[in-house]
Amino acid sequence: MFNAKVKSEVKVKSEVLKGIIDVTNPLVNEVKFNISPKGISLRAVDPAHVAMVDLQVKNDAFEEFKASEMELGIDMDKLSSIMRLSNTGDMVNIEYDEDTNRLVIKIGNIVRKMGLIDTAGMPDPKMPNLNLPAKVVLKASELLKGVRASETVSDHLSLTVNKDNFELFAEGDTDTVNLKLPKDLLDELTTNTKCKSLFSIDYFSNMIKPVHGENPITMMIGNDNPIRVEFDIAENKGHVTYLLAPRIESE
Amino acid sequence: MFNAKVKSEVKVKSEVLKGIIDVTNPLVNEVKFNISPKGISLRAVDPAHVAMVDLQVKNDAFEEFKASEMELGIDMDKLSSIMRLSNTGDMVNIEYDEDTNRLVIKIGNIVRKMGLIDTAGMPDPKMPNLNLPAKVVLKASELLKGVRASETVSDHLSLTVNKDNFELFAEGDTDTVNLKLPKDLLDELTTNTKCKSLFSIDYFSNMIKPVHGENPITMMIGNDNPIRVEFDIAENKGHVTYLLAPRIESE
Amino acid sequence: MFNAKVKSEVKVKSEVLKGIIDVTNPLVNEVKFNISPKGISLRAVDPAHVAMVDLQVKNDAFEEFKASEMELGIDMDKLSSIMRLSNTGDMVNIEYDEDTNRLVIKIGNIVRKMGLIDTAGMPDPKMPNLNLPAKVVLKASELLKGVRASETVSDHLSLTVNKDNFELFAEGDTDTVNLKLPKDLLDELTTNTKCKSLFSIDYFSNMIKPVHGENPITMMIGNDNPIRVEFDIAENKGHVTYLLAPRIESE
Repeated sequence: MFNAKVKSEVKVKSEVLKGIIDVTNPLVNEVKFNISPKGISLRAVDPAHVAMVDLQVKNDAFEEFKASEMELGIDMDKLSSIMRLSNTGDMVNIEYDEDTNRLVIKIGNIVRKMGLIDTAGMPDPKMPNLNLPAKVVLKASELLKGVRASETVSDHLSLTVNKDNFELFAEGDTDTVNLKLPKDLLDELTTNTKCKSLFSIDYFSNMIKPVHGENPITMMIGNDNPIRVEFDIAENKGHVTYLLAPRIESE
Repeated sequence: MFNAKVKSEVKVKSEVLKGIIDVTNPLVNEVKFNISPKGISLRAVDPAHVAMVDLQVKNDAFEEFKASEMELGIDMDKLSSIMRLSNTGDMVNIEYDEDTNRLVIKIGNIVRKMGLIDTAGMPDPKMPNLNLPAKVVLKASELLKGVRASETVSDHLSLTVNKDNFELFAEGDTDTVNLKLPKDLLDELTTNTKCKSLFSIDYFSNMIKPVHGENPITMMIGNDNPIRVEFDIAENKGHVTYLLAPRIESE
Repeated sequence: MFNAKVKSEVKVKSEVLKGIIDVTNPLVNEVKFNISPKGISLRAVDPAHVAMVDLQVKNDAFEEFKASEMELGIDMDKLSSIMRLSNTGDMVNIEYDEDTNRLVIKIGNIVRKMGLIDTAGMPDPKMPNLNLPAKVVLKASELLKGVRASETVSDHLSLTVNKDNFELFAEGDTDTVNLKLPKDLLDELTTNTKCKSLFSIDYFSNMIKPVHGENPITMMIGNDNPIRVEFDIAENKGHVTYLLAPRIESE
């Protein structure tokens, strides 16, 4: 079927699209997606300017992918509610309708047209070039347990890396949480120097929640510096990078 | 055991009684049940006079059914909370105790006596005689998906039938939902004319929720006319008819 | 490993510790645990002085148990939130750190240090010597159904025992709940006299909730007297005794 006006049309598994939403939604609600023949990408900063998310999904993460270069402004809450109409394994068809500036989303027999947001005012944040000397790779579930334990004692946690261990630490008035993982319990630990930085538990928790179970999370850590958190989504055809600014200890 | 005072006594599977509650409860809380040796029936109009429910359950939907002619005024919320004490497959015994004007409900070893409501002021609504030219029969799950999708964009939806298609449509400021089912995806479609009416999503949703999965729902649709929704319950020994008044488009 | 300062160290299955929390938490939040080489025990009265809980857990309920005589003041809500980090089957290690007066709780690779409460002001309630002539033993699930049914009609229920039956009764304005169990449906019924007492449903419900399914509950009942409720926990290596003061009927 020939349709000169439809410039982009993709077919994607429900769970792949839900994965993209999970990565983005906790940080930013209105997002500018950059579409190109190679895939989709986005980069956004949260309203408090504490965290940045960068997402790259290759065209082969989709069942079908025909796209021109374009920008789409998407309300992630709305897209999330639409995706609740689909189940794991369902195919979702998405077309861009230039005439009405809407996405036409087909799930089963339902056609859901969704208005887009004007991307004119939306920034294109630069990814800062950071020198983060320590690298730690570990299983998501292990890290998540430490973060959940920390939530009950404080609103911030410290991450420390030396050549032998990775350590997560949170401290309240009387209580503490300590998750100390020696090198042999990690998938990777590389550093020449001891690094320690402090982060908001809320933000850090949102960044690791999209990764489940035994899947690996990579963290680049410096000294009182932002952390870079990276992991794959969409059956390793998508890649997520978060940056989170440190909290500076007051004493 | 001879007991001249007990005039009615039934034994019913938990899930059958819960089905009756599910059909009635979203529309009306206080209901007059008409009991006769042939079964039970009720007809009630919601407080806003927008919808009517008519329910007929034959005596053979019950495991045992001994009943005189009588009217019982029942608080459906209360009956619903009592039925939560039973599980699927449990037998529920219900007797009418004339002396105290209560139902005596036995679930397992528990005897729960429930006060009845005075039926004196309760109306006997007439089922209006409507000429609804279009008939559509389809699977509950398909219709439910369309309604759930519509809830996020509007508070009303239109149903359109022509000789080839049934279509559900809802429209918000920027977004729309469209569920278009050609004749071959329906169990039945019969009409000589194009019919279209508009309905409140809240009410319509309540009317189809009691039907699950692949079970069929029959809809009789006219032009700016009420809709009649019908389906069977109680292993096809009970029949439900809903009427829902249309919303009239303002333009 | 020799450590003169650590006086007590135990290793316990997650579910055993959760069982102890379930028994205590609904009645009292701050609890003094008495630790000795033989096991742990506690006795506490709820803030309204209506109920008492007495708990004894033998050392062999624990996988490992090394303990000196000591008292530990524990915030049960906090301990409960910590235990949510563990799953059934997980081993939990708990040490007392005298230097900082904290518990050091290890779950997997997480070390959670929990501050203790000063036990100085905490009372040592005496278990009153009561003459409760009726004894009833029954399955938890049966009793729980009666209590759940009662919650919808009243805030108190009566328990009656005579030589043939145990009966639970609750009465609202128009509605009643009756659970009458003849001797042959009970595990045990022993009494020489008819006994009847009235209790708060809220309190009584909290006391039987920790017992699940077919497990037996023992009740000692008198006439307008407190009830004693007893059951085993921790694979029968722990024993719980509750006392609940009666409500006196006003008429």
